[in-house]
Amino acid sequence: MEQMLKSKEMRFELFHGSEGPRRGRIQLMRGAIETPVFMPVGTRATVKAMTTDEVRDIGYRIILANTFHLDLRPTSERIRDLGGLHQFMHWEHPILTDSGGYQVFSLSELRKITEEGVKFLSPVDGSHVTLTPERSVEIQQNLGSDIIMAFDECIPYPCEEPRCRESTERTIRWEERCLRQWERGESGVLFGIVQGGGNAGLRRWSTRRTVELDFPGYAIGGLSVGEPKDVMKAMLEASVEDLPVDKPRYMMGVGTPIDIVNAVEMGVDLFDCVMPTRNARNGRAYTWQGEVNIRNARHADDAAPLSETCACPACAHYSRAYLRHLHLSNEILGARLMTWHNLFFYHELMEECRQAIEDGSWDGFAARVRATFKT
Amino acid sequence: MEQMLKSKEMRFELFHGSEGPRRGRIQLMRGAIETPVFMPVGTRATVKAMTTDEVRDIGYRIILANTFHLDLRPTSERIRDLGGLHQFMHWEHPILTDSGGYQVFSLSELRKITEEGVKFLSPVDGSHVTLTPERSVEIQQNLGSDIIMAFDECIPYPCEEPRCRESTERTIRWEERCLRQWERGESGVLFGIVQGGGNAGLRRWSTRRTVELDFPGYAIGGLSVGEPKDVMKAMLEASVEDLPVDKPRYMMGVGTPIDIVNAVEMGVDLFDCVMPTRNARNGRAYTWQGEVNIRNARHADDAAPLSETCACPACAHYSRAYLRHLHLSNEILGARLMTWHNLFFYHELMEECRQAIEDGSWDGFAARVRATFKT
Repeated sequence: MEQMLKSKEMRFELFHGSEGPRRGRIQLMRGAIETPVFMPVGTRATVKAMTTDEVRDIGYRIILANTFHLDLRPTSERIRDLGGLHQFMHWEHPILTDSGGYQVFSLSELRKITEEGVKFLSPVDGSHVTLTPERSVEIQQNLGSDIIMAFDECIPYPCEEPRCRESTERTIRWEERCLRQWERGESGVLFGIVQGGGNAGLRRWSTRRTVELDFPGYAIGGLSVGEPKDVMKAMLEASVEDLPVDKPRYMMGVGTPIDIVNAVEMGVDLFDCVMPTRNARNGRAYTWQGEVNIRNARHADDAAPLSETCACPACAHYSRAYLRHLHLSNEILGARLMTWHNLFFYHELMEECRQAIEDGSWDGFAARVRATFKT
Repeated sequence: MEQMLKSKEMRFELFHGSEGPRRGRIQLMRGAIETPVFMPVGTRATVKAMTTDEVRDIGYRIILANTFHLDLRPTSERIRDLGGLHQFMHWEHPILTDSGGYQVFSLSELRKITEEGVKFLSPVDGSHVTLTPERSVEIQQNLGSDIIMAFDECIPYPCEEPRCRESTERTIRWEERCLRQWERGESGVLFGIVQGGGNAGLRRWSTRRTVELDFPGYAIGGLSVGEPKDVMKAMLEASVEDLPVDKPRYMMGVGTPIDIVNAVEMGVDLFDCVMPTRNARNGRAYTWQGEVNIRNARHADDAAPLSETCACPACAHYSRAYLRHLHLSNEILGARLMTWHNLFFYHELMEECRQAIEDGSWDGFAARVRATFKT
């Protein structure tokens, strides 16, 4: 049963599983989230091509927004003064915000890292901007985020051990500073982030030190940055191993249906990724019959929907031929319908994950997903 | 009361007005349309940024689609084989298709006009295409259009009298060929188009000759092509004067709220224009308080909706500050919400037109629209 929580409070219950796939519920002031869960990405205060009502109607109860983009434009102070991000984008359920770390580090040409934080040139207007752990938390509290991510350094892959160690240690110091800043603010729950790059020893060290800081939840960062799949798996294992069972675990920026199923199997609870939305705009749909590239000429005369077994609005009313026509004509409705379908699919994927854990039918379910998306 | 009609049948009733603004109803196989009416433009089988369900929920019961664009891609034969345009785009109400004439003539660099028709290079793949009156009607019947427009030549403004006369006379011959082709097909109602350029004498001649061909409805073509407002008004008057009172009149490609009110006042019943949808994507909104340019910096911190008196979804949930942010970020949702609002406004504009005619309060209503959008 849901209970009234304050903004800085979170409750996590685990119903099924301690090792392996686990079924739980995160409760926050703005509502409950059934885990494992996928969070659609709403970078600039919009899940691209969708209204928040449509996102909610699919069944989503948490979305992600990007600190970095929103502070550059329209700025977090502006959003705060307009009543916060929930009001701004018309979304009453929980929002998780990233720390801006990942975006800053992707601006490799433009940035300079010091102990204090990161200096970079704004891609919006070229001005000098400094992002520090304190400022990152302040921005996220300006936005009114429900789950605030600690400011970390995302280590590229591959990375030499000394640089990897230096960065991993600095992230711990930054996380301590985030905690102190968070305590000064009024809102949100602060999650720590495990780093350590592609080095299993540093991963374990980072996990241990991050857990000592005692966050209500932990993210596994720095994966899905171009490393081979077996490295991703090994690093995820090294990260998860020493995380407390009774706290939620969030694997950032992942991923394909198979990536998600693999990570759920290792005990991960939360996911976010641009794949369903970005691939939709590029004409790629996920279905229980496999991936569909709508650009393909064989769909030109196809009166069938993307998937005969899908209950999304795109599949209810529109043919592959129509979706292909819209995509080739660069029509907004094409991006809308494809996005709608893919978010519907990802929501269903997570529902089936949760059901399979509850039913004890995980192995069969996971095998089905792996067979469907085997490439 | 609606009565079951066959595909080639149309009924037009006039409730109020014989001279000046008039209130009527067009009945077609796929449903009734209250006039005066505005038809949203769905060029490539989509009203840009909208689902057909959203267009219907606003209250629209007829939309326009473009013969020229759809025959180039995905081709009218493909749409026919997929069950027709209504099925293709999931729209069960009437569709009016233009003849392709206007689009072809806008390709002035690429076309060659003969008595037979127009040859041009496809902007999609550079191939040679010939559009004739027969082919235009065939395409529109392939699409399953409810109201088919005769293939005409749109005369540029200004135009010398001999060229204007030659073209106006040829359009009459093309309309006769359209009629013969239409009789061979199974579906749709064929409207004639009055031309004559900016020449009042040729306008009257064109009207008289077109009416002799006895169409169930008449369009006034070749206006809103860059001519001064007083020329548009004079040509509209010259065209409407000799049109039969008991047939619907359609002013093609018009226009602003003031243009529409002016034309309704002269007895026009149907309108289409890309303005509400195109301007929406360019950040311009229509409201009962006047036009709003959402790019303007003064909206950056404005928590108010586009219009306090508007009941559209954009105004119900979103601030000007948010709409401006979406627009500057080039987000699809910005185009969606602005389009939704503008189509909602245009629908309300036409509802108020109809109400004002019924109530006998036309003059006050028209004055209000003119005052609101005076520039």
